[in-house]
This record gives sequence, structure tokens and C-alpha cells, in this order.
Amino acid sequence: MSGNSFGLLYCVTSFGESHGPAYGGVVDGCPPGLELSAADIQKELDRRKPGSSRHVTQRRESDAVEILSGVYEGRTTGTAIGFLVRNEDQRPKDYSAIADKFRPGHADYTYWQKYGVRDARGGGRASARETLVRVAAGAIAKKWLRQRYSVVIRGYLAQLGSIEIPFKNWQSVDANPFFSPNEAVVKKLEAFMDALRASGDSCGARVNVIAENVPVGWGEPVYGRLDADIAWAMMSMNAVKGVEIGAGFGSIVQKGSEHGDEMTPEGFLSNNNGGVLGGISSGQDIAVSLALKPTSSIRLPRRTIDTRGAATTVETGGRHDPCVGIRATPIAEAMLACVLMDHALRHRAQCGDVTPPTKVVKAKKIN
Amino acid sequence: MSGNSFGLLYCVTSFGESHGPAYGGVVDGCPPGLELSAADIQKELDRRKPGSSRHVTQRRESDAVEILSGVYEGRTTGTAIGFLVRNEDQRPKDYSAIADKFRPGHADYTYWQKYGVRDARGGGRASARETLVRVAAGAIAKKWLRQRYSVVIRGYLAQLGSIEIPFKNWQSVDANPFFSPNEAVVKKLEAFMDALRASGDSCGARVNVIAENVPVGWGEPVYGRLDADIAWAMMSMNAVKGVEIGAGFGSIVQKGSEHGDEMTPEGFLSNNNGGVLGGISSGQDIAVSLALKPTSSIRLPRRTIDTRGAATTVETGGRHDPCVGIRATPIAEAMLACVLMDHALRHRAQCGDVTPPTKVVKAKKIN
Amino acid sequence: MSGNSFGLLYCVTSFGESHGPAYGGVVDGCPPGLELSAADIQKELDRRKPGSSRHVTQRRESDAVEILSGVYEGRTTGTAIGFLVRNEDQRPKDYSAIADKFRPGHADYTYWQKYGVRDARGGGRASARETLVRVAAGAIAKKWLRQRYSVVIRGYLAQLGSIEIPFKNWQSVDANPFFSPNEAVVKKLEAFMDALRASGDSCGARVNVIAENVPVGWGEPVYGRLDADIAWAMMSMNAVKGVEIGAGFGSIVQKGSEHGDEMTPEGFLSNNNGGVLGGISSGQDIAVSLALKPTSSIRLPRRTIDTRGAATTVETGGRHDPCVGIRATPIAEAMLACVLMDHALRHRAQCGDVTPPTKVVKAKKIN
Amino acid sequence: MSGNSFGLLYCVTSFGESHGPAYGGVVDGCPPGLELSAADIQKELDRRKPGSSRHVTQRRESDAVEILSGVYEGRTTGTAIGFLVRNEDQRPKDYSAIADKFRPGHADYTYWQKYGVRDARGGGRASARETLVRVAAGAIAKKWLRQRYSVVIRGYLAQLGSIEIPFKNWQSVDANPFFSPNEAVVKKLEAFMDALRASGDSCGARVNVIAENVPVGWGEPVYGRLDADIAWAMMSMNAVKGVEIGAGFGSIVQKGSEHGDEMTPEGFLSNNNGGVLGGISSGQDIAVSLALKPTSSIRLPRRTIDTRGAATTVETGGRHDPCVGIRATPIAEAMLACVLMDHALRHRAQCGDVTPPTKVVKAKKIN
Repeated sequence: MSGNSFGLLYCVTSFGESHGPAYGGVVDGCPPGLELSAADIQKELDRRKPGSSRHVTQRRESDAVEILSGVYEGRTTGTAIGFLVRNEDQRPKDYSAIADKFRPGHADYTYWQKYGVRDARGGGRASARETLVRVAAGAIAKKWLRQRYSVVIRGYLAQLGSIEIPFKNWQSVDANPFFSPNEAVVKKLEAFMDALRASGDSCGARVNVIAENVPVGWGEPVYGRLDADIAWAMMSMNAVKGVEIGAGFGSIVQKGSEHGDEMTPEGFLSNNNGGVLGGISSGQDIAVSLALKPTSSIRLPRRTIDTRGAATTVETGGRHDPCVGIRATPIAEAMLACVLMDHALRHRAQCGDVTPPTKVVKAKKIN
Repeated sequence: MSGNSFGLLYCVTSFGESHGPAYGGVVDGCPPGLELSAADIQKELDRRKPGSSRHVTQRRESDAVEILSGVYEGRTTGTAIGFLVRNEDQRPKDYSAIADKFRPGHADYTYWQKYGVRDARGGGRASARETLVRVAAGAIAKKWLRQRYSVVIRGYLAQLGSIEIPFKNWQSVDANPFFSPNEAVVKKLEAFMDALRASGDSCGARVNVIAENVPVGWGEPVYGRLDADIAWAMMSMNAVKGVEIGAGFGSIVQKGSEHGDEMTPEGFLSNNNGGVLGGISSGQDIAVSLALKPTSSIRLPRRTIDTRGAATTVETGGRHDPCVGIRATPIAEAMLACVLMDHALRHRAQCGDVTPPTKVVKAKKIN
Repeated sequence: MSGNSFGLLYCVTSFGESHGPAYGGVVDGCPPGLELSAADIQKELDRRKPGSSRHVTQRRESDAVEILSGVYEGRTTGTAIGFLVRNEDQRPKDYSAIADKFRPGHADYTYWQKYGVRDARGGGRASARETLVRVAAGAIAKKWLRQRYSVVIRGYLAQLGSIEIPFKNWQSVDANPFFSPNEAVVKKLEAFMDALRASGDSCGARVNVIAENVPVGWGEPVYGRLDADIAWAMMSMNAVKGVEIGAGFGSIVQKGSEHGDEMTPEGFLSNNNGGVLGGISSGQDIAVSLALKPTSSIRLPRRTIDTRGAATTVETGGRHDPCVGIRATPIAEAMLACVLMDHALRHRAQCGDVTPPTKVVKAKKIN
Repeated sequence: MSGNSFGLLYCVTSFGESHGPAYGGVVDGCPPGLELSAADIQKELDRRKPGSSRHVTQRRESDAVEILSGVYEGRTTGTAIGFLVRNEDQRPKDYSAIADKFRPGHADYTYWQKYGVRDARGGGRASARETLVRVAAGAIAKKWLRQRYSVVIRGYLAQLGSIEIPFKNWQSVDANPFFSPNEAVVKKLEAFMDALRASGDSCGARVNVIAENVPVGWGEPVYGRLDADIAWAMMSMNAVKGVEIGAGFGSIVQKGSEHGDEMTPEGFLSNNNGGVLGGISSGQDIAVSLALKPTSSIRLPRRTIDTRGAATTVETGGRHDPCVGIRATPIAEAMLACVLMDHALRHRAQCGDVTPPTKVVKAKKIN
């Protein structure tokens, strides 16, 4: 294994490069009997598709998914689900100018030094285009989690550069190209992105993801913690540099009497812990926040070296997202879905005979 | 597997409860021929030992480690290294008052609901005392990494509650009970902790960890990223609620022209990425920061429920760290060491025949 | 994970059903820099292809492989190698007569009872057609092992029904449709198969596989034994019911003074152990033998039950190998190659700094 | 991981050397709530204990097990079960005469060449004494399987050297020191062993293991096959050179019309497949047979080389089993139990919502 699979029981394997013939993946471990069609996956792929607004990369891809196995007469069979997305709008020539240079902040340099060989076309394997495999795998997980446990997983853009976006409602999120949960801010985001794009620069972002209705008991103690696996999943996304669960870094300045979420027979009175206690879900909403760095591929000239080690400068043309955070929401949702599904299966493997002994009223929603 | 092992090639397995007979672990995958004695491990265990100052738990444990296998005539044999630490100062009676209640912010509730049974003595398996297994495993990794690759891994307390601690120098870190890298702040920390302890409350903290001299090329793309595995490792520690690599959450407000670390033949000009690009080490320092929540076990009364679901209050006596962050530094170092060692082995498995093609001057130190 | 991946460092993931759109796989962990083209894989796929003689299934498949990722400018990049083989000659209608019955000796019944749903077209996921994924993955492993370590992996048919086939030479193996290492026996095999086919029945077989030039030291003690992993790999092939290493079941009646392979400075004097001692390769040839049961799909009527549990009989038309053992040779070679490659990588991960301390003359070939 | 752990969900980790301070292990993944005491494990350890008759090694070990974690108030908690067995009768000096020589047929040579260092005391990690860890882990699995699914796992000695032992009844098995299922043969076995021991030589054996009442549906297709994992488990035992499931090598000469087990509403009419079809349990008895080679450590002089590569001879004194097969029965039972438990958990993780759709009368017992 060299990093192209994840998950113990709901296991996702991925392949593909940005300007190769195709991306694809294998989902292993899905329970049998789930109704599944390409449309279920396509719906989520379309949410992260390039070219959907002027604020993201203009690469033209239909991102049409083909299911190759594991589904028979409209239902999963319990065997491996293979799927494929052909690349359609490859332009490897866009990259000839930077094929022997390393973009600052990009994986160009580290792939080259690690492997001694590098597919320089659009970042090759390092391209964020790989995230379509995650979204496809997450679409299946989302559907099963919702049907089997009523789990709902949703995310939104919480900050774009220095613009904080106060959460208003979930309806707004899919009604604008930013996944902004607040329509009042959209105009401001558009103006900011137009100016940013004109400047040839890029910016960072914060994305929040919430999973509702997760039963108490998912996650394993010590090294198999649910929150640790979520942190891994988020940090494995391109450009992510920070992850928080619940109060996150804010908990540094909290007192124990403030942070520890009190309980009543009607549920928890707060959710500083973000739905995870001791690595195990508490029944409250799982609340995750992540920081995405600004895109490395920018038009502004920057100092770098070439593959012979000589000083040079690099400017990146081609088609790039000026803020990878904008399209990150469906990816973060997908990764959270995959982790939760893995732990749902792990939990019933070991604790399938356990009924949670203490009855509590469904925890109040406090985030 | 139910969460008590981690690592693909440098694999650590852990067992033990806070008030059971012993903790222990198995380290599998250590290369043969490494000089190793109990003293190498004891040295690190003593750094996290309870009772070393009035600011931490007063439990009296010698934490003496016994190596049971895998070492012959003073050198590792390449087989499994088993080790054991007997508990000496168990006081299970301290917990009788809270055996049927759930401490807010603690794993009491989730263990109980997941397993239907719970070792209530001092948190049982959820106790932070488990981290001694991590420290032991990390001690072996640290030694091998330093001997084989000159890698140096060091951490420090960067913030205690609201007191930020500016980094001065590494010598200070082991010269005070807080792992403070700044002796001028120690008096302030002591006063703060004395007041906190008197109040019966607890507080959060920030710990930073740095790995120097990590070669370029460790880590695997996509899902086997070095930074994702580090995020997992840090979030798997008790009480951790947030993890950052490099600029972390600060990268949200950076522009691409500011964040992307420029390169010259003399090395990188900044380290916003914290030593990892595309999931692979860049040759710069690996820089990690983590947020620890305040301890859940406090003397102040708090609202909660009991195992029958009825409303009650809980006050936690016994012996507890008023700030788990104080003793977290050696644990974070250990976890980083284990992750790096795992990836060192993984890298040479796949890329053992590759020499990094571009020669660069050893990157300048900019953190 | 639900059984569709194998290998720790050279990891193979597989998907596809007999009468679905395609088979495919992902090979993860291949070292970078290996020259690789579709032709390298095609060559091996053609050896197991159906329809190559009248003695095997008459299904017409070109089994043309497409590499989808992981290769750039003719060399592996170190990232995931995705590949695809489209099914061309699906005839799902052939199976309508048996869609609600269970063939004796077949996986029909167990898939149905395990998953509650079953792709009845040609065995679905249980079809031996899946072995083309193994052969593709093995082709890459074979090439790397030969280039990097001069390892040569070859197999042959050692017994067909009751006809034992004495080994003559390797040249014969690919010169007849049986992988018989003895041309003198081929006429007899043909006559036997013609009669068997006419009778509507099927038969079992024995296949032997040998790996030459395997260096001393591959394999891990106790649970990661090379021979255990080989046994797993062979038994994971369709229809295999027995596996032997070296003297195998013959060692039951041997004395220790006869079995234990004596050593001299010129090498071992025998190879009863089949190239593995204590789970670790000895430098001698790895010698494996496997028993394949007769094909379950036969034209003769047999007693069985249907999906409602009622008694019935079943006769299997369609196109089937009357002896799956005939085409098993390239599959067994591929599985041995994958296991050896995995252990080659694992060995250099842990023991990359070790030089075998005792110099021995290259062991004499005694099998 | 370097070979000292096995199992995906019921995961066993092992450490210890023959003449080091102790053996021990960690069982991870056991469901919570199982009544468990040291006596449950001790009972099985006593069955494989050395010194129990004159026909096995005379090493004097009480093999007393201490449970260190994972059990609270007499029940498993769902967390890691650590256990320890101290070595008591170490005699490392017994090995000084062979410390720089390689015993033919032994792992001496391969460990030395792999690791460049070797614990020569009694085979170190390669000693069959490690199997006590397997037996301990198997004892827990056996208990859970019997309580939860009524699964019964039993083995017996089927052949000693050239003496075949016809199965009579299970009661006999634990009534003699050979695990012979036939008391009439015991005198013959004793005479044979007495003569063998006097001669200074050793012999091989065959052991059969049967699991009854295994539900239909355990095991995963393709690479996660139950029979493949069983083959792995058996071949991972010291000295095993061959494994068969059901008809095994006998299936080579069977016709399909003979081998394929016919079904009726009253169950299967034969069990050539040994309880596994397509890698998944069929509901019939799981039937496994294994071949064990003769012990390598014998008193007769044999040609070998020393660590400098020079020719020499070796005679092995010390205390050794003249036939490791005699004590192999409880070990094989334990390994089968661990594999079955792992697959029981894996099955309910993925297929926990499936009820086998076809009702069949409990399969008749035909082995």
C-alpha cells in the first residue's frame, strides 16, 4: 500500500492523474441491498464539478461516472463497486512552461525528489481533481448512512480569505457557487473573487462540516478514535493545513467548568466537544472545521529553482481555482461520510449485541 | 482490530487501564541492530511521569519499564519488542463516588453507551495514563531516527490558558515543569496554576512540536500523506481538539503569493507549509501545533446524569492534572516520532532505489 | 475492506463480474521508474485467455488491457496503477435456467445466503474470470522481480485427473495448451480431455510453481511468514483445495534426519523445505504445489435445491472449463509473484541496512 | 508491522522469545460482556504445555497466564486484552554449542541472514513456544464462538510418522498424550515414540481440525476467503508444510460429478468442499488437515556450516519435542478459532442486516 486506499471496513481505493485518461476508484465493504445508480453518485460529483461558475477553474469536464461492478438490478451486491470517470479536457501543453520548475507551495518538488520521476501535467497525481474519487465514494456512504441511521452530513464555506460568513441556514448553501450558508454575503464574496482573480493571486478559506443524528457509540478508543480518523480525513484533502473538532483551538482559553458539556435527562447543554468524547460519538452533532491554504498555482511571478537546482522564476498559467476552498465543501462532506460509515460498520462488528444501557432523550441541538 | 494498534510498518500495540495491574505495549517493525536498553525508554517516560511537580497529578508511580522481548545482548533483533509498566498507586476507591455518573466532557458516557460495560476506575482505558505506551514506543523511534537520519524531534508548551509563551530556546524546555521554552514566563505560569488549582477548575493549552532534519520524500500522496498521518496522531491524544501544520488556520487569510514558500538554490525562503508539500516531507522542519482542552475531571460541581438517566451533579475528587497540556509535550513528540519512523520505513520500501535527482543546499531554518 | 484487496506494500485491489461491463484493478506500491506498457501485462493475460484451445471455455474475449494511470512516458511513477479489461462476450441469458438454483460445489449458494442478493450471471463476482486481475498485477510484479533481483517465477501442470505429468523441461510448458512440462504426455492429455468433455463431466488437477533466485531473508517470522502468505495466495484462487510447500504432505512420513536440508559451503544438499525456513526465504528455490478441484459447472444432472429451498435438479450449459486447472498455471505464477514482491519491499523497509553476514556459495539447485 | 500481528477485527499481537523473560500478547476486538477469567485461558494452555508426557519436550514450565487488561469484574470490556506468561525454565547454556551453527531445517540460518543478528537461545523468536500466545488468543475466540453461535472447534492427531490413526470418537482425544481419537492405537504410538526418541531422530505428523455449527455466510469473496485465511493460519504454525480443506489433494482425481456436494432440503449429501464454497462458509463442518514436518533439532549428527560459512557438523542436545505434531492439536484449534471469530465479526459488520433468504434444514453431518 502506498497511500491510495483508506478505510478499514468501508475501504476506498483511488487512481488517476489530472491529464491521464481517467480517474476511478473501488469501494469495498458496502453492505448489500442498497439501491444505487450512477445518478446517486453523479449528483454529488456535479456539486464539485469544475467550470460551474467564473470563480472556479474553467476546465470543462462532464465528470460523468460509470459504475463498472458491484451493483446488480439496481442494488449493491456486497462486492467491490468499481467506477470510472474519463478525463475529457486534458491540455498537457499548458504545463510545458513549468515542467522543469517547482511551483512554490506545490507538490511538484516533493514528488520529484521522492520518486525521481514526475507526471508534470497539471500536478499529475497531486491534482485536486483526485477528489472526485472521494466525492463518489462519499456519495455511497452518505446514502447508506441516511437510509440506515438517518445521518445527515452537510458542510458550508465559513470564511473566504478575511471574509467571515455567519451561518444563516442550510437552504442557502446549494443556492450559490460558494456553498455560502448566508445569501447576504454572496455579493461581497463575488466582488472579492473578481478582484482576486484579476490580481493573479489566490486566497485561503475555512469550511465547516456537520454530521447530524450520529448514534452514540461510533469510534474506538485510544488509536481508533473517531475524531482522530476525522482529522486524518480532513488533513488528507489537498490544501488543508488545520483541523478542529468542536471548540477546537478555542478550547485552549476555556476553563474546564466552561468546556465540559453538561448533561441533563433532556440531553447535553452545549457541544464544545463537537460530538466526540474519548474518541467515541456522543450522539450530538459531529462538528468539524478546516483551514485551506491558498492555491499554489498563481499567475504572479515567484522565485523558485528548476530541476537542475538553478534559480529561476515561475508564473503559472493554465486553468486553476483561485481558491480551492470554494469547491471543498462537497469533498469535506464526502470524507466525513466515509469515516462515519467505516466506524458504523466497525461498531456493529464488535458491539452488535450491545444496546446502549442508558436511555437519554435525543440530545438537544446546540452547536 | 479495535483501535489499540497504529502504524503500518512501525506498528505500536497498546493495552492497560488506569487502575488495572499494568500497562504495556508491543513495538513491531523496528529494524534490527539498534542499541536499546530500558534506560533509553525510561528517560522519556520520566519526562511525562506524574507527580513531578505540584502542577500535575500527585499520583505516585515510578513508571519503571521492563523490556520483555526483541532485544538481545543490548541490540534489537528485528522481532517484536514487548514492554511492561506495572501500576503501583492504584486507588480505585477514589472513583466509587462517580462510578454511576458521567463526568461532563469525559469519555465516561460514551464508553458506557458503546460497550454496555465500563471500567470506572480512573477512566479505565480512557485514562491519559495510556500515553506512557506512546512515549515508550516513541522513545525507540526517536533513537532510531536520530541515529539513522539525524532527525531531532522536540516540543514545548506554547500557551497555557490565555498565557502565550514566546519561544526563546530549547534549553529552557526541560528546565521547568511546564516544558516552557522561556524561563521568564515560568513564574507567571506557576502563579496561574496555583490559582487554578485552588479554584478547583482546569484549563486548556497549546503545544508545538518540531522535527528537524527530516529528509525530503517521506510520506505518500493522496491518502497516505505525512501531514494527514500527523493530524491523526495528534488528534488521537487525549484532550486534543485541534491540529495545525505550518501556518495552519493562519493560512486562511494569507494570499497565495504570501503563503507559497519560495525556493532558491540555498533552500526555501519561508516555511508556511510546515515541512510538508503534497503530503510529502520537503526537507524543511516539520512544524505541528495542537490544542488541548481543559481536563474534564474537576472539583467544581457540574450538572450531569447517572447510569439510570436521572439528573444529578458530579464533583471529581481524586488526583488529576488541572491541565493535561502540561505533560503533553513528550507525548506529542513521541507520536510525531512514531509517524515519521513509519514513513521512513515505507519510503525506503518503495523508493529504496531512488536518489533525489535535484541537489539543494540544506534548506535554511525558517519557522 | 471486504476481501477485494491484498498485499501490505504491493497492494492489489480488484473489481468486476463475469457478465458486467468490465474487470479492473489497482496496483499500489510499485516502485517508480519501472519500464511498463500494456504489452507487458497483455503478454501474461494472453496466457490465461479463454478460447485458446478446445480444452478450455469457448468464451471469446480479447482480454485487452488498458492502463489508466501510474505510468508516464513509459515508466511507473510510484503512484497507483489503474487498469481495465472490458468484457466483450457476455451472455447473461445462458444463466437464466440456473438463476434460481444452486450448482453443487459452486459459490451460488453461499453468496446468496451471505448477501441476500446475487448476480447469477456466470457466477458474478465468484467467476474465475476475476483471475485476470491477479494475472495483470502479477505481470508487473514479475517484471520488477526479474529486473531488480533476477527472480524467475514459472509454473506447470503436474497432474490432470489421474494422469501424472513428470517434469521434463520449461520450454515445453508454453508450447502446448496445458502448460505441460512434458510434450510426450500431451497426446494423452488431449485424449483424456476430449473424452471428459464428451461425458459432460469435469476433473481436478495439480499445478506446481517455482520461484528461482529469491534472495535469502524475505518473509517475516511468526505471522508474516512467507510460506503462510503463499498458502493464503494459492488457496485464494478459485477451486484450490490444498497447498504444499517443499516436501508438503510427504514430510509426514519423513524422519528429521531425512527432511532437514543439510548445508555445505557450496549450498544446501536438498530442498525438502521448499525454499522457506522459519517463514523466511533460504535462498533456495521456492517450491509450491496446489490441488484444484473439478469445475462445479457440468452438464450432468445433479440434485440440488432452489432459492425457495425446494428440491430440484440442475444441469449447467453455457461455456465452462471442464478443468480449471488447465488455465491455472499463469494465475498461480502471478499470485506467487505478488506475494514475493510484497515481501521484497517489506524486507528492505525493515532490514534495508543489513547485509547477510554469512557468505555462502549460491545454493545448488535441488528440487 | 513485521509479522507479529494477525486478524483484521479479532486482532492478535504476540511477543516473546524462548529463553527471554516472558511471552505475551494482546487480543484486540473481542466483543464486550464476555465472561472471561485466567482459568478460561489456562485450560487451553495446559493442553499444549510441555512436559506433560515423556513423548514431548521435558522443559518444565507452568505456563501460568496473567490477564493484564481488558477484563473488569469478570467480563470483557471491549478494550485490549493484554496477557503475560513468564518463562521459568530457561536454560540458555544448552544452546552454547550450537550458537554459531545452523541446524538443518531450522530457522537459525534465515533469521541470521535476514537480521544480521540472532537470539540463538532455543530458537529465540522462532521457537514453537510462541504458540502459547496463539492458544491463549484462541481460547477467548473459542469461548465467544461457542456462546454466541454454538460453534465447536476440535482437532486430533490423524497420523504419526507412517502410523495412520482412524478417527473413533472425540472423547478419546483428551484422554491420551497424543490427542489420538482412537485409544486402540495409543500403545502403538507410545512404542513408536519410545523407539524414535531412543534413535535420536524425529518424525512428522498429520493433524485434522473440525469446526461444527459454523453459520452459512462467513468469509469474503475473492481475496478475503475463509479457506484462504485458514490456509494462512495453518501454514503460519511452526513446522507446517501442507494444508488441505475438505477433499484437499484428493480432489485432483475426483470428477465434478463426484466432488460437487449435492443439496437437498435436508442439507448437503457430502462434504468434499470442507464447509467452504467460494470462500464463504456453507453451514457444513469446516474440515482442515495439515502436515507437520519432523522436528529440526535432533541428536543425530548432521552436516552444516557455521556463521563464518565453514563446513561443520551439528548435533542438538537440549530439550526438544521429537514430534512437534503431537502438541499441535490445540494450536491448530486455536488458529481456526481466531480466523472464524475474525470472520464472524467481519460478516456482521457488512451483512448485519441480512437474513439468509433460503431456509434449509440444518445440514446433515457428513465428513
